[in-house]
Amino acid sequence: MASVRSLGSPASDELDLPQPYLLFLGDTTEPGYAKTAFGLRDWAGDKCVGEFALPSATVTTGLPRLSPREAKAAGAQALVIGVANSGGFIADAWLAALVEALEAGLDIISGMHARLGDLPALRDAAAKSGRQLIDVRRPPARIPIATGLKRGGNRLLTVGTDCALGKKYTALAIARALRKRGIDSDFRATGQTGIMIAGRGIPLDAVVADFAAGAAEMLSPEAADDHWDVIEGQGSLLHPAFAGVSLSLLQGSQADVFVVCHDPSRERLLGDEAFAVPSVEEIIDLTIILGSRTNPAIRLGGVSFNTASLDADEARQLMEQESLRLGVPVADPMRGGSEFERLVDSCVR
Amino acid sequence: MASVRSLGSPASDELDLPQPYLLFLGDTTEPGYAKTAFGLRDWAGDKCVGEFALPSATVTTGLPRLSPREAKAAGAQALVIGVANSGGFIADAWLAALVEALEAGLDIISGMHARLGDLPALRDAAAKSGRQLIDVRRPPARIPIATGLKRGGNRLLTVGTDCALGKKYTALAIARALRKRGIDSDFRATGQTGIMIAGRGIPLDAVVADFAAGAAEMLSPEAADDHWDVIEGQGSLLHPAFAGVSLSLLQGSQADVFVVCHDPSRERLLGDEAFAVPSVEEIIDLTIILGSRTNPAIRLGGVSFNTASLDADEARQLMEQESLRLGVPVADPMRGGSEFERLVDSCVR
Repeated sequence: MASVRSLGSPASDELDLPQPYLLFLGDTTEPGYAKTAFGLRDWAGDKCVGEFALPSATVTTGLPRLSPREAKAAGAQALVIGVANSGGFIADAWLAALVEALEAGLDIISGMHARLGDLPALRDAAAKSGRQLIDVRRPPARIPIATGLKRGGNRLLTVGTDCALGKKYTALAIARALRKRGIDSDFRATGQTGIMIAGRGIPLDAVVADFAAGAAEMLSPEAADDHWDVIEGQGSLLHPAFAGVSLSLLQGSQADVFVVCHDPSRERLLGDEAFAVPSVEEIIDLTIILGSRTNPAIRLGGVSFNTASLDADEARQLMEQESLRLGVPVADPMRGGSEFERLVDSCVR
Repeated sequence: MASVRSLGSPASDELDLPQPYLLFLGDTTEPGYAKTAFGLRDWAGDKCVGEFALPSATVTTGLPRLSPREAKAAGAQALVIGVANSGGFIADAWLAALVEALEAGLDIISGMHARLGDLPALRDAAAKSGRQLIDVRRPPARIPIATGLKRGGNRLLTVGTDCALGKKYTALAIARALRKRGIDSDFRATGQTGIMIAGRGIPLDAVVADFAAGAAEMLSPEAADDHWDVIEGQGSLLHPAFAGVSLSLLQGSQADVFVVCHDPSRERLLGDEAFAVPSVEEIIDLTIILGSRTNPAIRLGGVSFNTASLDADEARQLMEQESLRLGVPVADPMRGGSEFERLVDSCVR
C-alpha cells in the first residue's frame, strides 16, 4: 500500500523526511524555477546524491546526473521535485519520470501546490511499489486568525523586490551568521525549499488567505528577549499575484528588522514581463508603512543584493555605491565578506 | 442519504440554493457578527421567512421568530447560518439547534470556513433525515495565478477602514443605482453573504493565499467598455489579520474606482480592540499606492459612511463636513438621497 503523508496535523511541525535525496529538475529551462534544487544543493548538500532531469531540461545543479536506479544504488531514499513552475502544478511531461523513480524504490517528496496523491498515475505506482508520496506544502491544521498582539523575542524578515532573487538565501545566511556569533536564533521557513532544508516550517503561500497572517504569527512564537527568529520572506509587496502573501507575512511576523533583497540585473518581474521590478526604495517605504501597523518600531537592517550576474569588482563597486546612496549596508550574502558582517551588525545592533 | 454540495467545481459558478430561508442567529450577542442574517434580510428579504436563535442570543433581525418546524410549515426550505464568529467555525453550542432543523426537514446552508459535513452530528442527522448540507464558502477549482494584465470593462471596488462596516451594502447599493440609471453592471460577491444574495461569486477569504489575486481576476472577467463590475470589498489594508486578503482583492480587481467605507462611530477594530480604526485618508493613500501597481489610473470615487448610530441631522452634518474636508462626495447608501446620487455620479463620471 502507498502511504500518503502530509504536514497536515498540528503535531507534525518537525519533519522526518527520507534522505538522502535525488533532485528532479523536470523539463526546466529557466534557472529561476529550480529554486528548490539549488537551495538543497547549497544549504543541504550533504543530503543530495545527484540530479535527474528530462532530456529537454537545460538547468543543472552541477551534481552527478543519475537515473533513479543509479541514485537508489548510491543510497538515495527519495526523489525531491526540485523545480516549481508558476502555479505549482505537476506537469504531465514529468509523470513517466516520477513513476520510474517510484519503481526504482524511491519515495517522492513534493513542495508543489498540487497533491502527489491526486494524480492516479503516481498513486497507482506508489501503491504497487510500496513507496511514499510526501507533500510538504500542506499547512498545519487549526491555524488561528491573527491577533496582531506583540510577542516576546526579536524578528528579522527578508522582503523582496520580486520572487526568486534571494530572500531564502539571505535569511539562511543571516541565521548562520547569528549562530556563529553565539546569538540564539532560528531560521523560520515559509516555503517548500526552506522547509526541506530546515526540516520544519509553514508553507505560507498554501494557507487559506484569511489565516495567512495567523500562520505567520504561529511560525515565530513568543520567545526570550535575546532570541532572534530569522524569517524567510515570500513574494513582494508590489508583485501583482503575490503581494497579499507578502503583506500577511509582514504583518504576522511583526518584524523588528527587515532586509530588502534585490537583483540589480533584473528589470522585469520573473514570469510576469509586463511589470517592471520596483526600486529598493519603494519596497523600503511600503514595508515601513505597512509593517508599522503591527510593529511601530520596524526598521531597515540593510539591503541584500543578488550579484550572481556580475563579476567581483563590479559587484563590490555597485554595492558600495548603493550603500552610500541608501545609508545602510548593502551586501551579497553569497559573497560574504566584511560588508555582509556589517549588514548583520546593523540588523542586530 | 445526505448529499453534501459545495461550490467546488468550475461549472457551479451559478448557485441554485433551496429557498426560502430560515435565518439562524446562534447565540450571538454582537450585531457585527450577524452580517449574513442582516444582509439577507435587507437585500433578499423576499427569500426569508423568519429567524431562529438560541435563548442566549440578543441579536435579532426583526423577522418573525420561528422554530424549524414552524418555519418548514411556513414554506422554508433551508436554514441559513446567519452569523459568523471570528475564525468562521461552527460552535458546539449550535449543534443541537442545527440537528433540530435537519429533523424538521430543512437543508442547512453555511458560509463558514468549517465544512458542515466534517461535523459527525450534522452528517449523521442529514443522512437520517435525507437533507442537504451546503457549503458556499468553497472556492472554485483551478483558479489561475494572477497575471496583472489589464482587462476590458470598468471596475469599482469598495474598501474599508475595518471589517463589517458596510462594504457589501455599499457595493449592492451602487450596483442597484447603476442599474436604475440603465448602466450595464454586475454586483460581484466575495463573501458568503454576498454570494447567498447574488446567487454567485467567489469566497475570496477561503482561497489559498497564492491564488487570491488570481481569484479576484477571475471574479471580474473581461467585459464590454461600458460595463461596470461593482466588487464587494473584504477586510482592510490596515487590519492585522486580513490585510493580505484586501491587498489581493485590490490588485486582482484592478479597480478603476474605489469607494472607502467607514463607520465614524467606531474607534477600535471590531474583535481586535488593541488596534485603532485607521483614518479614511490613510486608507485612501494606501489604496492608491498599492492599487496603482495593477491600474495606474485608479481613483477615489467617494466615501461611504455607516451612520446607523447617528440621527438624521447629525449624520447629514457630519457627511457634509467630511465631504468638504476630503473633496469628494460622502454619503450613507442606507440613507440614500442626493448626496448618494452625487457619490454614484462621481464614481462613473
